[in-house]
Formats: sequence, structure tokens, C-alpha cells
Amino acid sequence: MQELTHFDAQAWSSQARLSVEDALSQWVPERASAGLGQSMRYAVMGGGKRLRPLLCLAARRSVAALQPNSEHDPLDDVAMRAACAVELIHAYSLVHDDMPCMDNDVLRRGLPTVHVQFGQAQALLCGDALQALAFELLTPEGEGVQPQIQVQLCRLLSRAAGHTGMCGGQAIDLQSVGLHLTREALEEMHQKKTGALLLASVMMGAACVDPRVLPISALAHLKDYATHLGLAFQVVDDVLDVVADTHTLGKTAGKDANMDKPTFVSLLGLDAAKALAKKLHDQAQAALVASELPQTQALSALAREVIDRPY
Amino acid sequence: MQELTHFDAQAWSSQARLSVEDALSQWVPERASAGLGQSMRYAVMGGGKRLRPLLCLAARRSVAALQPNSEHDPLDDVAMRAACAVELIHAYSLVHDDMPCMDNDVLRRGLPTVHVQFGQAQALLCGDALQALAFELLTPEGEGVQPQIQVQLCRLLSRAAGHTGMCGGQAIDLQSVGLHLTREALEEMHQKKTGALLLASVMMGAACVDPRVLPISALAHLKDYATHLGLAFQVVDDVLDVVADTHTLGKTAGKDANMDKPTFVSLLGLDAAKALAKKLHDQAQAALVASELPQTQALSALAREVIDRPY
Repeated sequence: MQELTHFDAQAWSSQARLSVEDALSQWVPERASAGLGQSMRYAVMGGGKRLRPLLCLAARRSVAALQPNSEHDPLDDVAMRAACAVELIHAYSLVHDDMPCMDNDVLRRGLPTVHVQFGQAQALLCGDALQALAFELLTPEGEGVQPQIQVQLCRLLSRAAGHTGMCGGQAIDLQSVGLHLTREALEEMHQKKTGALLLASVMMGAACVDPRVLPISALAHLKDYATHLGLAFQVVDDVLDVVADTHTLGKTAGKDANMDKPTFVSLLGLDAAKALAKKLHDQAQAALVASELPQTQALSALAREVIDRPY
Repeated sequence: MQELTHFDAQAWSSQARLSVEDALSQWVPERASAGLGQSMRYAVMGGGKRLRPLLCLAARRSVAALQPNSEHDPLDDVAMRAACAVELIHAYSLVHDDMPCMDNDVLRRGLPTVHVQFGQAQALLCGDALQALAFELLTPEGEGVQPQIQVQLCRLLSRAAGHTGMCGGQAIDLQSVGLHLTREALEEMHQKKTGALLLASVMMGAACVDPRVLPISALAHLKDYATHLGLAFQVVDDVLDVVADTHTLGKTAGKDANMDKPTFVSLLGLDAAKALAKKLHDQAQAALVASELPQTQALSALAREVIDRPY
């Protein structure tokens, strides 16, 4: 595939976002049992930046050019399923996180959270069903895709979601309220809590290619990219929690500080936190260059988006 | 493999149960982040009949004889992983079911439930992490197993756990409190809520074989077996809820009746419910005979165990 000299990042991400919305709308059931479909769609279709699906599709784009191009590559469908599966895991984690026994948040993207809208029992089931649906999406019936790629996607996603990833990070988060964490401990928490799923988004996109054509070194650089981006994302989140208002965020601002949770801002100060975000961004961009992959512009643009969120 | 004339069902299931306990103990992490491992092990290692893992291993046994036997068949390990994965899904569903926003139960197998022991937030995360771990177990690193079998296991488990299966049934259950369900509606609820996972246990065990050696008709009969057994299991559960006491059950007795939930006993009366359980058991046994599989004695014994639980 010939790379265009000019890459329109905004056009690419608008188009990718629309495709993700379409795919999610198709795959998240409207009519599941007893209102379950309703709450699942509410949790998933309420907007959001779709950062994780876009990272997955951008990573797929960066490796797709390594393979001879075909008109209808079944791996494009696999990558879209991977992108949506990651988003379902993210969506379920928000539903459960917002519940009264966790963060007890009533507002998400400017709308009532799932348990406010549907009740706690339904919210619990909704999150559970979304997690299962993620693995359903990765294992459709029928042939045409190398099963080892499907296995690899399930492997990456389950590890990123579970006790060594997102759930593990949330458990550390639970225990850290009111504690003075070191910077290392704070980074470990975030690396698991949000970083693992962001990393999986990129790795899953990169897995949607015949593994024989992807150099190990390129994969390692993509991993570096995703790790730096994941941490930058969290640092920016901490900054936004302090400087943005509830209306701009679409969720309750100042929450972490109010709950006496350790953040990069509380640890480093505001200016140093901003500088750290910038440095991590630059490291992510450098990793893309080092990967020597032919089409990394979408990944590069997403890294910029992560640190350019409005303050 | 030559079938022995005498099959010692009790010896088989004691041995299988021990192997399952060993495998679970090995695979459920002791030292996951911030107490998460502790709650996960508490949820999983607290005993229980291990019916689902045994069904999986018994189904594997029924199909293993179709393939030339080797000393160390890697599919034995795959089947054990499948057995434990199903149990993890079952365990997580109990943890979440017991929470105050659901059944609000404080006792499980004679011990405090997970949220009583560790708090609600930890119980929520514990269940979430157990679901992810189930899919981790099914997708170990390394070669040696046909990836299409791993994909099939993830496919069966995700569908049985999600909105078309267990979670869907629980959503119906939530909405049915105080309603007069027809027998058809009650059966649909149970078919999803508990039947789907019992069915998956059998189907996953049967998937642990080269698919080319398993006749489609045998698979269909195994499905019949599991469907009848699943419903029998629920009918017996409803009978036990009425006639057994809390001490014998290890969980709060009379709970469904107290919560005004529809049950087979409330719908049919006690004697007719017992007769129905017996009839379903006989249909399950007939399906095993019809399957013409060489080694169905373990499956047969498990069906007997299901209806012979102490009244």
C-alpha cells in the first residue's frame, strides 16, 4: 500500500470513529433479556472519545501495509471486532466503577450513570454481560480468519482486563485512598488501571496481521509507544481533574482530590505534571519513529490528541 | 481405549474433584494486587461440589476414547483449563449474586460471603477479575494445542456467560420477583440463568477432541443430556429450597419463597416438582445411550448425583 504524502489525521479519526459507532451499534444487542440490552446499549452508545478503539484501528493500520493488500481483507473485520471488544471492557469498567460501593458517581458524559438510570442490580449485570460480550465479539462463528490470531486477541484482552491489569490496578486504587504513594507506586497503579487496556488496544491492533510479517523489534517499539501514551493519558487526566470544571469534563471534577486520592498533581505539582505529560508524549512519538513501520501517522495523531485535550 | 467392565463412579469423581482443586489452587493467584488475590481465592477455593468442572471432564472422557490414545495428550490439560474456567464463571456469578444490590446474602457454603468478608468494592472487583481469569485460562501462552479448539472454548464460554446466557437469565430473574411466570417463562429463565453454563460445561468438555472424530449426532445427544440435566438441577434446587434447612444447604434456605420468586414448587407443587426432576433425569440418561459414545459412565453418574442430592 502506497503511503499518501499528506495524511489527514482529523478525517481519518472522524471516519474511524463513525465506523466504530456503527459496529458497536450492530454488535451490542438492543433486545437482550429483561432490559439488559437497554442498559448495555446505554452504557456503550453514550458517546465518549472511543480512544481505545481508535488506537486499535490505528495500530492495525500501521501493520496492515506490511502485508500484500487485498480488497476485502478479513483482518479488517477482525480489527474492528478487537476495537469494539476493548471498548466494551472499558465501558463495563466505567459502569462498575460508578456504582455506589466504588466511586459512587451519578454523572458520566453529562448523563446519569447506569445504576442511577437502571438500578444497581441491573448495572452490575450490565457490566458483567459487557465483559462477556467482549469475548463473544472476538470469537465469531465461521471460518476465514486464522484462529491463532483470535486466540492471541482473547489472550491479550483477558490479561489486560484481569487481576494483572485493570482489575488489579483498581484494587490498588481502592487501597490507596488517603495514602501517600511514591511516584513508582502511583505509576504501577496507573499502568495497571488504565495503561494495561490502552496497551492492549495497540497490541490487539498490531496482532491483526500475519505474525510472520511483523518484525519483533517493531512490536517492541509499538509497546513502548503505548506504554508512554498510557501514562501520559493518566497524567493529563489528573491535570484535568484539577483545572477543568464539571461541565467541560462531563463528569464530576475535582473528585480525586476531594477523595484524597494520590495523583500526579498532588505528587509533583501542576507544572511538573504538565511537563511530564509532554515528555511522555515525545517518547511515544520517538518510539513510533523507531518502529520503522510504514504508516504510523494515525498513531502519532492519537498521541497528540491525548495530551492536547482541553485544559 | 478399552472400556472397563466396572466403572467406579465414586472413585472417578473423587479423583477428578481433587485434580480440579489442585488446578484451581495453581491457577487462581495468591498474590494479586492489593488483596485481590486473597478475595479471588476465597471466592473460588471455598469448596462446593465442582459440578461444572466435573461435567466438563466427564464430557471430555466420553469423547477422548474416540481418538487414538497417547500418554500425555495435551487436550487433557486443555480440558482441565476448560473445567476450571467454567468454575471461575460460576464463582464470579455467586460473588456478584450475593451482593446487597442483588440477593443480599451473607452466607455461602457456611461461610461469610465475599462482600461480607472483604467489602462490596472488593467483591465487585473480585467477580470482574474472576471472569477475566476464565478467559486467561483458556488462552495460555505456547503451542501444542489446535488454536481452533481454544477459540471454540472461548466462544462457548462467552456466550454461556453473557446476555444470551447466565447474565440474561439473571436479568429475567430480577424482573420476575412477585410476578406469576408461566412454566415456559420459568424454564426460559432457568435455561439461561443456570442451564447455559451447565450446557457449556458439557459442550466445552466435548470440544476437547479433534472435531473430525466426533459425530455431529453424538454432539447433539450430549447437548440434549446437558439441557435435561440443567433443568433437573434447577427443579431439585427449588425443591431443596423448600424442604432442606439452612444448615444442610450451607446457604439461606427458603430464600426464594421468602422473596416471592416463582419456583417449580410454587408453580407445580412439591410432588409434581419431584416427579419432574425424575423425568428429566431419565431423559438425560436416555440421551447418553442415544449418543453411542463409548465412555459415558461418568456423565451418567453425575446426572444421578444431581437428582440424588439430600432432601
